[in-house]
Amino acid sequence: MNADNLPLILVTNDDGIYAPGIKFLSSVAAKFGRVVVVAPDKPQSGMGHAITINATLRIQKTNYHQAEMEYSCSGTPVDCVKMAVNHVLKKRPDLVLSGINHGSNSSINVIYSGTMSAAIEGALEGTPSIGFSLCDYSADADFTQAEKYISQLIEQSLKNKMPKGICLNVNIPKLKAADIKGIKVVRQSKANWVERFEERQDPYGRNYYWLTGEFVNFEPESTDTDEWALENGYISVVPTQADMTAHSQLTGLKYFETLK
Amino acid sequence: MNADNLPLILVTNDDGIYAPGIKFLSSVAAKFGRVVVVAPDKPQSGMGHAITINATLRIQKTNYHQAEMEYSCSGTPVDCVKMAVNHVLKKRPDLVLSGINHGSNSSINVIYSGTMSAAIEGALEGTPSIGFSLCDYSADADFTQAEKYISQLIEQSLKNKMPKGICLNVNIPKLKAADIKGIKVVRQSKANWVERFEERQDPYGRNYYWLTGEFVNFEPESTDTDEWALENGYISVVPTQADMTAHSQLTGLKYFETLK
Repeated sequence: MNADNLPLILVTNDDGIYAPGIKFLSSVAAKFGRVVVVAPDKPQSGMGHAITINATLRIQKTNYHQAEMEYSCSGTPVDCVKMAVNHVLKKRPDLVLSGINHGSNSSINVIYSGTMSAAIEGALEGTPSIGFSLCDYSADADFTQAEKYISQLIEQSLKNKMPKGICLNVNIPKLKAADIKGIKVVRQSKANWVERFEERQDPYGRNYYWLTGEFVNFEPESTDTDEWALENGYISVVPTQADMTAHSQLTGLKYFETLK
Repeated sequence: MNADNLPLILVTNDDGIYAPGIKFLSSVAAKFGRVVVVAPDKPQSGMGHAITINATLRIQKTNYHQAEMEYSCSGTPVDCVKMAVNHVLKKRPDLVLSGINHGSNSSINVIYSGTMSAAIEGALEGTPSIGFSLCDYSADADFTQAEKYISQLIEQSLKNKMPKGICLNVNIPKLKAADIKGIKVVRQSKANWVERFEERQDPYGRNYYWLTGEFVNFEPESTDTDEWALENGYISVVPTQADMTAHSQLTGLKYFETLK
């Protein structure tokens, strides 16, 4: 097949262009098409859907990935997708892949996650997009355990175009390949973080704080959620979109229209 | 009424604690309860649902608002809400108000908006929350034009508890008070930004970029959207939540579960 006929795959992440997770993902992507990497030049975890509008952006060629082209970008994960599509490629890729994140992006984490925000941005621009996360924060996390599933999800997404505006939030449990039971297509679990701010003093006697917190699953009994899938040995796939309207509440809140 | 019985109202924003919009909002809020302001110490527009996990946070007492307590915070709008609830107040307020933003947060802007992310964070923590935005970017924007509607939305939200997990995305058209036709409860319009990166050269000959873009409404004919309401002289109220699952796609994507 002529190289020009191969799908064009944009790879990004939020852990930064030199993270092991994106290195692995770009190498898997290379089996399915021409890979272009545009990823943050530094860790951007927890950046959500932030974009850079009060500062300038820079990009720099790098040579770390098995890719046709690669750039590090000074911005957020969402900036990287916008920069890739509108400046580097000057066209839409066939697929946007984000990750593999070092740590879970299941449940409510989707809203804080730079990894998933990059995938959502891809979907907003009309491109099938997948965000991958491995539920293992350790530096030597093993990304190969779920390789066959990652490959198949990429292959299927290229073949069967995803509905427009939709991306996939894929979370992989920390398990050996033989122990992964398969894939569950599920919804985002209702959960939240209970925060605690750790107070410390700097050498000059002034207080500063670290955000810490504990994840609380509000519906541990529900079996149709990403949390359930992960706890039971499955890879969770949540179709995700950027419509934040609470459609079920539109009628109930109509009384606001009577205010004068 | 004893001051302790008055509702406790947390006010924040993304334009920073010294912006005229939050000054006006905290003064309106003061008519309905005890006001506590915790807001960013600098502009944080476009920060989306970003949180600060790779750096420390600081807060500082300020004295600029008609408030019982006020602090500027070095973090994002979402950090401000977490800091207010878990550290400053050590309890949940009765209402979270965010804004008034200098500029629209209608349609897809909800996902990029620090103002709305603060309101969504309030809702996530189980508190009725409202994000207010005025469709006027100018420094001398007139926030008083919609004061009676803002007051009534605050009053109603305190009286009729909002469904849990829901917040309101309120956008106010740039119109004189007499020309505002009322309120429409509507859904988030399908729209997006078409970006262009403006390339410039620094004094050292290196390129840098400014993110610019043009807003494109994909459904200008639909009459049940926030864009329609605003264009037709109404204040738009969109019930908003943090569930990003594309529920309608769950069945169609079940075939992923057959991958082995």
